[in-house]
Amino acid sequence: MVTSKVWVLKKHFEGFPKTSDFELKKIELPNLKDGELLLESVFLSVDPYMRYSRKDMKEGDIMIGTQVARIVESKNPAFTVGTFVVAGSGWRTHFISDGKGLQLLPSSWPESLPKSLALGTVGMPGLTAYFGLLEVCKVKIGDTVLVNAAAGAVGSVVGQLAKIGGCKVVGSAGSDDKVAYLKKIGFDEAFNYKTVKSLDEALRKASPDGYDCFFDNVGGEFTSIAINQMKKYGRIAICGGISQYNDTVPQKGPYVQIPMLFKELLMEGFIVTRWNNRWEEGQKALLKWVVEGKLKYHEHVTEGFENMPMAFIGMLKGENLGKAIVKV
Amino acid sequence: MVTSKVWVLKKHFEGFPKTSDFELKKIELPNLKDGELLLESVFLSVDPYMRYSRKDMKEGDIMIGTQVARIVESKNPAFTVGTFVVAGSGWRTHFISDGKGLQLLPSSWPESLPKSLALGTVGMPGLTAYFGLLEVCKVKIGDTVLVNAAAGAVGSVVGQLAKIGGCKVVGSAGSDDKVAYLKKIGFDEAFNYKTVKSLDEALRKASPDGYDCFFDNVGGEFTSIAINQMKKYGRIAICGGISQYNDTVPQKGPYVQIPMLFKELLMEGFIVTRWNNRWEEGQKALLKWVVEGKLKYHEHVTEGFENMPMAFIGMLKGENLGKAIVKV
Repeated sequence: MVTSKVWVLKKHFEGFPKTSDFELKKIELPNLKDGELLLESVFLSVDPYMRYSRKDMKEGDIMIGTQVARIVESKNPAFTVGTFVVAGSGWRTHFISDGKGLQLLPSSWPESLPKSLALGTVGMPGLTAYFGLLEVCKVKIGDTVLVNAAAGAVGSVVGQLAKIGGCKVVGSAGSDDKVAYLKKIGFDEAFNYKTVKSLDEALRKASPDGYDCFFDNVGGEFTSIAINQMKKYGRIAICGGISQYNDTVPQKGPYVQIPMLFKELLMEGFIVTRWNNRWEEGQKALLKWVVEGKLKYHEHVTEGFENMPMAFIGMLKGENLGKAIVKV
Repeated sequence: MVTSKVWVLKKHFEGFPKTSDFELKKIELPNLKDGELLLESVFLSVDPYMRYSRKDMKEGDIMIGTQVARIVESKNPAFTVGTFVVAGSGWRTHFISDGKGLQLLPSSWPESLPKSLALGTVGMPGLTAYFGLLEVCKVKIGDTVLVNAAAGAVGSVVGQLAKIGGCKVVGSAGSDDKVAYLKKIGFDEAFNYKTVKSLDEALRKASPDGYDCFFDNVGGEFTSIAINQMKKYGRIAICGGISQYNDTVPQKGPYVQIPMLFKELLMEGFIVTRWNNRWEEGQKALLKWVVEGKLKYHEHVTEGFENMPMAFIGMLKGENLGKAIVKV
């Protein structure tokens, strides 16, 4: 018998999530049946989408989420003990699977590369950047690309992919350390939105001609200001709206119709699962760039399964540089 | 010597345009030089975009606009006296042209058809509906299409084209007469947004499953409510924002990022001039449907050039059913 620790959503989030919204429980796992596997989480992911647990969960459910896990026991001939997979089994230290939906790491994954990247730069956040830039922003050589939350798991990949694609890249982030990191990984311009006198001026200074593409992870006031600096036919990819996630009353801002109309802008919201059938293509491309050193990564690792709620809340506050990961 | 009456923008509009913002003047036209034509306006158009004169005009300029005009004198062998053309010569009874930019009516134009339609259903507003539906909304058979200001010059064409294309069509308009007209020309559902208890309920009742396409002429609060009733991957074409044009202080509403994101919506602003190179294709299609009786039209005709400001202001107030036209 194996005991699994799990984090349960005790109370639906109201406003900013609190540690008291979660509860740590222990579950005894049954013995494996034929065809089943026992897995042990090695790295767990905390991501902004989990704030929207109300959509997919009820109180008392185990928190949704993905992990890199190791197979510790197998009664399924298709899976060998010791193999690492990506699973979507929620906040658990151990779990049983019939193998369905488990993703093997690409066979070209080098030993030297942290397997946690399969939850970040070479995983869902990286693919979000990849498909959002290619399919929604439709970036082309010479475009000027704006990205906010630029030092985050998605934003940092967006900027670097845009550079690989021959664009000028401007990033906004929430600390001077993050800004320094963005410049280090090749952003042409970067600024701390919390300390600039005027966001409007900062955007104008970073690209006086305006922006062709805006990869928006933040929404709200940032977007209302940025939209006025889009070029004619500019494209806005709405990937997230982290400025809005913790509102109890929806915030208001200027209506978007007038700038959308006169500049003939295109705005599209997207969720990466739309391209599930192209996952392999994207992952292969990202892995290749990482291995070649063209795509840098940074992880913000919290040690200890018991710290998952704190890691999640810290990520929502923007405490992480790069991908927020929990190491069990 | 010919005397032309012209309407001048005396003062830039502040809030809702007033008749005192305009001034009627007389201009003596010089004699024609070789290559030139003298034209007489027969029908003039008043359109919402003229509210944005500040973008294209300064105080003292003649009001921008288009007309159907008759050639009354010609020193240009390419143009015959008596021919009707569409010109973009502003609010004038007479004007001189070198022929550049004048558009002949399609050769298939039947004698029985009012030439004023070249300013409406078979002109710029009709083409706005045509390209907006085809290229921005990308309507396909079976889609449910929502259009507001549905009894206006653009909206009434949008609804009928969507019906021709095999869609279900829901229209919103501002009077019971307009609603009756919409039902007469084939809208599946129509309601008076000014008298419904709840716009949200009216939209839900008209299409409980939501909307695939939303052709938005209005913006503001209407859009904020409608956006929550879009289906997954819904398309919103922003053609106008007449609820916003006369604001002195920009109105505010809920940010759009959350619904855009979770439903993966696409929103695009557009101006019909984007498809200038396909004008002939669109005009031919619209004329054919009109001649076949599949595309009905209604004109709201104001008599007398001196009444142009009133006709313009009345159109902004929504007094027109169908296209607002001034007959000189």
